[in-house]
Amino acid sequence: MAGKIAIFTKADLILTLAGAARQGGRRVKEADLGFLEKASMVCRDGRLEWIGPHRRLPKQYARARHREVELKGSTVLPGLVECHTHLVFAGDRAAEFEQRNQGVSYQEIAARGGGILSTMKRTRAASTAELARLAQHRADVFAEQGVTTLEVKSGYALNLKDELRQLEAAGRLKGPRVRRTFLAAHALPPEFKTYEEYLEFLGREVLPAVKRKKLAERVDIFVEKGFFPAEASRRYLEKAKALGFQTLIHADQLSLSGGTRLAVELGSLSADHVIQVGEGEIRALAASETTAVLLPSADLYMKCAYPPARQMIDAGVRVALATDFNPGTSPSQDVNLVGLLARLEMKMTLPEVISAYTVGAAHALGRAQEIGSLEVGKCADFVNTTADWRTLFYSVGERSYQGVYCQGSLIN
Amino acid sequence: MAGKIAIFTKADLILTLAGAARQGGRRVKEADLGFLEKASMVCRDGRLEWIGPHRRLPKQYARARHREVELKGSTVLPGLVECHTHLVFAGDRAAEFEQRNQGVSYQEIAARGGGILSTMKRTRAASTAELARLAQHRADVFAEQGVTTLEVKSGYALNLKDELRQLEAAGRLKGPRVRRTFLAAHALPPEFKTYEEYLEFLGREVLPAVKRKKLAERVDIFVEKGFFPAEASRRYLEKAKALGFQTLIHADQLSLSGGTRLAVELGSLSADHVIQVGEGEIRALAASETTAVLLPSADLYMKCAYPPARQMIDAGVRVALATDFNPGTSPSQDVNLVGLLARLEMKMTLPEVISAYTVGAAHALGRAQEIGSLEVGKCADFVNTTADWRTLFYSVGERSYQGVYCQGSLIN
Repeated sequence: MAGKIAIFTKADLILTLAGAARQGGRRVKEADLGFLEKASMVCRDGRLEWIGPHRRLPKQYARARHREVELKGSTVLPGLVECHTHLVFAGDRAAEFEQRNQGVSYQEIAARGGGILSTMKRTRAASTAELARLAQHRADVFAEQGVTTLEVKSGYALNLKDELRQLEAAGRLKGPRVRRTFLAAHALPPEFKTYEEYLEFLGREVLPAVKRKKLAERVDIFVEKGFFPAEASRRYLEKAKALGFQTLIHADQLSLSGGTRLAVELGSLSADHVIQVGEGEIRALAASETTAVLLPSADLYMKCAYPPARQMIDAGVRVALATDFNPGTSPSQDVNLVGLLARLEMKMTLPEVISAYTVGAAHALGRAQEIGSLEVGKCADFVNTTADWRTLFYSVGERSYQGVYCQGSLIN
Repeated sequence: MAGKIAIFTKADLILTLAGAARQGGRRVKEADLGFLEKASMVCRDGRLEWIGPHRRLPKQYARARHREVELKGSTVLPGLVECHTHLVFAGDRAAEFEQRNQGVSYQEIAARGGGILSTMKRTRAASTAELARLAQHRADVFAEQGVTTLEVKSGYALNLKDELRQLEAAGRLKGPRVRRTFLAAHALPPEFKTYEEYLEFLGREVLPAVKRKKLAERVDIFVEKGFFPAEASRRYLEKAKALGFQTLIHADQLSLSGGTRLAVELGSLSADHVIQVGEGEIRALAASETTAVLLPSADLYMKCAYPPARQMIDAGVRVALATDFNPGTSPSQDVNLVGLLARLEMKMTLPEVISAYTVGAAHALGRAQEIGSLEVGKCADFVNTTADWRTLFYSVGERSYQGVYCQGSLIN
C-alpha cells in the first residue's frame, strides 16, 4: 500500500455527521450527528481510509509504519467550513460604526467618503503582498477556531486589475483550504454610471480573465433593489455559468428582490442572507439543491431581522451558517457568535448548528462529496476538543478546539 | 532611590483616562481619554512614578539601571477592570440553554434538577483544587483579553463550608489582581425554607467567618421580587457594613424591586444590572457615589431588555460594564461582546465604553484611587496594542492586546 498514513486513535467520541450528510444536510436531528465511541481514524494522503470503533481497527494498520496520534480524552468532529467571507481588504470601518450608532445615516457616511467605496480605495491602494499579509492573519484567526475550509470573496476593488489581485492574495493563504469567489458585482464603482453597464464590462472583460487565470471557482452577485437588478444579474450569471463557473447570490437581504428565486432557477450553489423571503421562496429552496446561507452576525451588527431559519429547516431547506466577515457590516470572525445567535435568535437546535457549519456549508461550496463529514474517501479534516460537544456554539470568544487538522495535518 | 524600576518607552499613543478619572467616570467625552503622543511611563515597585511625552523623560531614568521595554508602534491604555463575574463553579449548564431555546420553561428546567441548584451540587462536590483549576483557566481567558483586575463572587455553594472554599479557590488565582465578593445570598439552598431564615443564618454564622478569615472584601445580594426581599436584604447588608464589608446589590434586573434605591441609601459601591429602573432611580444614582454596573451579555443570553444606559449617562450616573460571566445566564467571557452590545444596543459611545471598563469599573470595586487610569501614584496596570484604539470593542472574539501588564509585570 503506497501513500502517507497517519492514524488517529482512541478518541472518546467522534461525531462523524454521516447521517446529516446522507440526508443532504436537511432536517438534521441529534442522531444524525453519527456518534462513534472510543473510535479511531486512518488517514492516507489526506483522505480517510478507515473510521470506526478502535477495537475494530484492522490489524494491517497496527503493523504498518506510520504516524500515530492518540486522541484519548477528546471529542472529534469535522472541521468547520466557513462558506461566506470577504477576507481580503485593507483598512477598517470602525469609525463608521461609531457614527452609525450615534445616529448618522448610511447615506451621510457615504457622502463623507465612507461606506464600501472607502474600503475600495484602501484595497486598490494596497500591494498584493500587504493584502495577503492582512488576510493571512484573518485566516489564522479562523483556523484557531477550527475552520479547515474557508471561502474568500473578492469585491473590494471593483476593477479588472485589483479584483484579480484580491483573488491572487487569497490564493497565497496558508492553513485552511481556500475556495475563491469572484464578487466584483458587489457595488457600483465610481468609473461606471449604471449597474447594467458595469455588469456588461465585468462579463465582457473580467470574467474571462478570472477564468483564464484560474483565480476563482465561483461567481457571486449582490442582487437587491436599488443595486444589481435581478434581470441584469441573471444575464451576468448565465454568462458565468457558460464560462464554467459555479454561481451564488447575495439574495433578499434588505428587501424581497428576486435573488432567492433566481438562485434556484439557475441551480446556484447558495442563496446567501435570505432574510426577506416568504413561503414561496422557502418552498422553492426546499425543492432545490440550493443551500440557504444564514449570516446572523451581520444581522446583529446591521440590527435587521434574522432569517426565518426555523420555517426553512422545517420545510426541508438545507441551511449553512457563516460569519459574513467583512469590514463594514460584520467585522467579527467569531464562529461561536454565529452559532449562539442561530440558537438564541433563530431557534436552531445545536445539532442543526453543527450540521449547518459542516455538511450544510460543504454543500454551499459544492464540495459535499469531499468535506463536511468524516467518512471513508472524504478529506481528513477534523478538530478535537476536550469539551463536551453540548458546550459548543455557546460561549462567544471561546477557542473550543485543541487540535485543528486539514487533510490529516495540524494547521492549528 | 530604592525599589525596582521598569521603564516603558515611546508608545505611539497612551490613553491615560486621566480626564475620565477626574470626572469620576461621569459624562465622559473623547477628550477625557487623555491622549499622550510618543509617550513613556516609569514604574517603580508596580506603581507609576512618571508618565509623559518621551522627550520630557527625566534624565535620572536614562542613567538608572533598569528594565526598559520599548512600545514603539503601540497604543497603550489602562488594563481592563472586569468587575462582575461568578468565576468559581463546577459543571456547565449548556444543555439547559438548548432546552430553554427550544421552549422549555425555567420552572420546568428547575423541576428536572437544572438551574442554579444544579451548579450548587456540582460546586459543593468539587474539591477546592478542582475549583481553583477551573477558575484559573477562566482567569487566564480574561487576562488574554487585557483584564488586569478581576472581581470574583462566591454564591454557588450556599452553605458555610463550601462558600468559604469557593472564596479560598478565588484566593489562589494567578494573573490579574483579584477582588473577592461574598454572594451566598444568591439563591435559596434546599436546607432553608425562607429567604429571611437563610439570610439570618448567613448574617449570624457565615459573614463573621468570611470576615475572620479575610476571604472577601465585599458582600453582594440578589434583591428581587420572589427572591431576596428588599427589607430583609437591608438588615443583612447593614450587618455586613457593621462588620466592615463594602456592599453591592444585584438590583432591579427582572422587576423594579427596590435594589437600586437600597444600594444608594446604603452607600453601596454598585447596583448591578439596573434594567427595570425609572427616572427616580436614575436621579438617585446620579446624585450618589454608587456605580451602575451594566451587563449586556447577560441581557443577550436572557433575551431581556437592556438597561437605559443613555439616560443614565446623560443624567450623570457613573456606569461600569462587565461580562457577568456565569454558567447559567452569561456563559461568555468575551469583553468585546460586552462593549459591542453597549454600543449597538445601548447607544454608548466608544469613549464611554472604554471609560466604563476602566475608570467606571475601578469605582465599582472601590479602587478608583489605585486603578482604572494611568496616573502617577496609581498601579502600572496597562495593555498595549498595535491596533487603532477606534477599533476596540468592535470585533467579537478578538484578542486585541499584545501585552497585558499588571503592576508593571507581564501577565499575558
